[in-house]
Amino acid sequence: MSLTLKNMAIKAGKELKITGVPKPDALGFAINIGHEEDNIAFHFNPRFNQHGDHHLIVFNSRQGGSWCKEHREHHFPFEHGEEFKVSITFNNDEFEVKLPNGHSVNFPNRFGDDKYMFLQVEGDVRITGFKLK
Amino acid sequence: MSLTLKNMAIKAGKELKITGVPKPDALGFAINIGHEEDNIAFHFNPRFNQHGDHHLIVFNSRQGGSWCKEHREHHFPFEHGEEFKVSITFNNDEFEVKLPNGHSVNFPNRFGDDKYMFLQVEGDVRITGFKLK
Repeated sequence: MSLTLKNMAIKAGKELKITGVPKPDALGFAINIGHEEDNIAFHFNPRFNQHGDHHLIVFNSRQGGSWCKEHREHHFPFEHGEEFKVSITFNNDEFEVKLPNGHSVNFPNRFGDDKYMFLQVEGDVRITGFKLK
Repeated sequence: MSLTLKNMAIKAGKELKITGVPKPDALGFAINIGHEEDNIAFHFNPRFNQHGDHHLIVFNSRQGGSWCKEHREHHFPFEHGEEFKVSITFNNDEFEVKLPNGHSVNFPNRFGDDKYMFLQVEGDVRITGFKLK
């Protein structure tokens, strides 16, 4: 699975809802929002079993191709083969993700921008919908 | 605007709903479903003012990089700057599109396949959502 949206303005104050289904044998997947592949303001990476991690979510950003400091979150409301919905909003200071269990997690908007034109979903997940409004 | 989904199975019998907004000065846009850029089973191309056409929809397929025989449809329920919804379903024989005004149009499934892994939206449109179920 790979989904790339370019040239669509994801603006501060808008809500992005993504629904998907992790593959039955998913190791992990990621949702990236930023300017391009090498400059990602918001990297959201649920790991079932990936890079030595089990059932946690890694948040990070990537600047000029280099990953920055990770945040690690131990809420993990994702199941193999079960549809989930996440909702993402942001302002100049931070991103807020609503996880499928209703829990919210914040991650700093390290670029401080109020508009991103790049959305990517990668890894072991089947995206079934997204909505921006 | 350019949206490309690869490796997502769009299967016969499933319904794909796409919502979007033509840009205020849109000349035209297209939704493509197929195997890859050069092999498109379903090319749906509303033209406000494009290639000498005004307010019509061109349907076509593309095989090995060559366009095939066009279908031209004079229903044109699209407006600059106004959100639309189209719904696409298919079987081995044909695609069926429900246009925003409720009118349905059929176009033959010339490849006859029951699964396509490539979805692309291009041109003067801002996609605000899609749903596959």
